[in-house]
Amino acid sequence: MQAITFQQPYKVLVKTVPIPKILQDTDVIVKVCVSGLCGSDLHVYRGDEVGIDKDTIMGHEFMGIVNEIGSNVKDLKVGDRVLSPFSNCCGECFYCCRGITSRCEKGQLFGCLKNGYGIHGGQAEYVRVPLASSTLVKIPEGISDNTALLLCDVLCTGYFCAENGLNELAPQISYLKQYKLEYQKKDEYDDIVVVVVGCGPVGLMSIASAIYLGVKTIYSIDSIQERLEIAKEFGATPIHLIDENPIEKIKEITNGRGADIVLEAVGNLSSLDLSFKLLRPAGVLSSIGLNHSNTFPFNPNDGYHKNLKYISGRCPVRQILTKTIPFVLSKKFNFEKIITHEMKLSDGEKAYEIFEKKLDKCVKVVFKK
Amino acid sequence: MQAITFQQPYKVLVKTVPIPKILQDTDVIVKVCVSGLCGSDLHVYRGDEVGIDKDTIMGHEFMGIVNEIGSNVKDLKVGDRVLSPFSNCCGECFYCCRGITSRCEKGQLFGCLKNGYGIHGGQAEYVRVPLASSTLVKIPEGISDNTALLLCDVLCTGYFCAENGLNELAPQISYLKQYKLEYQKKDEYDDIVVVVVGCGPVGLMSIASAIYLGVKTIYSIDSIQERLEIAKEFGATPIHLIDENPIEKIKEITNGRGADIVLEAVGNLSSLDLSFKLLRPAGVLSSIGLNHSNTFPFNPNDGYHKNLKYISGRCPVRQILTKTIPFVLSKKFNFEKIITHEMKLSDGEKAYEIFEKKLDKCVKVVFKK
Repeated sequence: MQAITFQQPYKVLVKTVPIPKILQDTDVIVKVCVSGLCGSDLHVYRGDEVGIDKDTIMGHEFMGIVNEIGSNVKDLKVGDRVLSPFSNCCGECFYCCRGITSRCEKGQLFGCLKNGYGIHGGQAEYVRVPLASSTLVKIPEGISDNTALLLCDVLCTGYFCAENGLNELAPQISYLKQYKLEYQKKDEYDDIVVVVVGCGPVGLMSIASAIYLGVKTIYSIDSIQERLEIAKEFGATPIHLIDENPIEKIKEITNGRGADIVLEAVGNLSSLDLSFKLLRPAGVLSSIGLNHSNTFPFNPNDGYHKNLKYISGRCPVRQILTKTIPFVLSKKFNFEKIITHEMKLSDGEKAYEIFEKKLDKCVKVVFKK
Repeated sequence: MQAITFQQPYKVLVKTVPIPKILQDTDVIVKVCVSGLCGSDLHVYRGDEVGIDKDTIMGHEFMGIVNEIGSNVKDLKVGDRVLSPFSNCCGECFYCCRGITSRCEKGQLFGCLKNGYGIHGGQAEYVRVPLASSTLVKIPEGISDNTALLLCDVLCTGYFCAENGLNELAPQISYLKQYKLEYQKKDEYDDIVVVVVGCGPVGLMSIASAIYLGVKTIYSIDSIQERLEIAKEFGATPIHLIDENPIEKIKEITNGRGADIVLEAVGNLSSLDLSFKLLRPAGVLSSIGLNHSNTFPFNPNDGYHKNLKYISGRCPVRQILTKTIPFVLSKKFNFEKIITHEMKLSDGEKAYEIFEKKLDKCVKVVFKK
């Protein structure tokens, strides 16, 4: 079969490789219909994630059809249309039982082999899914292949980022409703100001999610005009990172306080720095971008004096899907708008270059055979 | 009147100064019965808090009797027995309305004058309390002077630290109860492991608070034996920082995972480092110690890979008192156990030395005339 494989930093190669086989009785082989190219694939591509084996099949976003099934796989059959979270999970360990499926004790990231250990990715014609019963999710009627693909990572990750921000702010809002009569009539999030830093796929999904969850006032910051336009279509007020002064603008809107919640969806030092500066005292910094910085742009003293709430980490997609599937079925947003490029697996090398360099107004690339 | 005044780093001086007068019609003058010496007074004492004016009256913990009252003060009268949060608040601003009274737009810390701006502290015979109606709280029957003094800061701060940790963990527990039948019968916090780093007054109060809030399994770490003994009396299992290996011990207890919640009640780089290492993935790090470190001992990448929830900041005492007054009235703990030294204001200089150097098994000093 064809597969996009990692060779060395900044070099992937489309290769013909053997079709994966069932290795354990809990495995499923999925025939891939659509796979995605995700921002975190670029961490691998750039060599930030050290030690990925040469010839690892790339990609952790894929949906398709169950093609072959281990003898001990439950609730799935050949022909089922399924999507996969970007990491698999057992559904039974300490973390899975607490909804933190992304920290499953047996979980592995797709497209991440180190010293022979790990599992291949989905940028291929077929992919082996271990722990399939507790990992794969059947795709309900009314969800397209492309939208199902977005559920594998970016849509759930954006939702998780927004939900975390809102959960952390909840005690302040209940206090307000309890002690201020005029707020008892209002909707929960009528008066909060949310800022999204970064309008890549995850940032855009976090905008849609925040609005779906009831946020009325949301600003989005990026330096790429076409991304700001999609953010606007999703309901955010765009702020250009360079042409405008985001901090001044947000302070102006909030009587000098800063945002109640900042959703940081980039994952580098400067985006985290900007996010912290945009945040009001006792606000919530929900940071979802995988961040390889070796330091924080703020210190514990800054955090103390801001009464900081900081929440970060890998999205537990399998758990979040119980909320994002109804979200998608609500048909409130055309999520596929972010898919700017449908390409063939055979164009893999070119696709990585386009996405990495943000050429041709690229927001999101998906692969179809 | 007598007052303990700041002169320069590591030098306070007991002086005779004028009795404060009403300056605004919302002021109250409190005749102090008991004032406290708090760990954060040591930040001032050591000169960590730069720019405190010479002759500032020290201290932000005090309780006493309303002695004089401004013309516009409501709900208080001369003779009322009152306690004060360590900072005052207006009760009306954006932050006060959200329960973040410690970030009140008009709030000031007691015992903190910089370039003539600010308010004097409570280590004196009298203290002026601006915004008195929304700051001072009448002390109910059945709460002693010493216990009331502990409510001004350390007891509320410890409670805030514990409550934050438990609030952040709540979604995981509700998920567990929803999806695992055997957990539906259990109490909410039956199975969680909490670790308190630092058994100073705030750490000890956070132990009592966590237990009051339902925690069954709690470990406390310190290097001072007599503090570990009080922690044990409050219901924690003590771990000696030096003689034992806290990280190994907690990993052992939690099948190698780490603690669900770490309550960090010291406020320096090494305590924060230990706290992070003690924490399991997707655990909560509730850090209450005022921390002057200029860097975090972990980085955003570490935080991401641990799905870190980090919460810190100054306790909103005025709001927390609505919960800690019933807590105190429950009589479940003898909080005064932490008061190892009752001294006279005239012994101020000696008291700071004893407390700073932890001489004579000192945990907490209070002053009475």
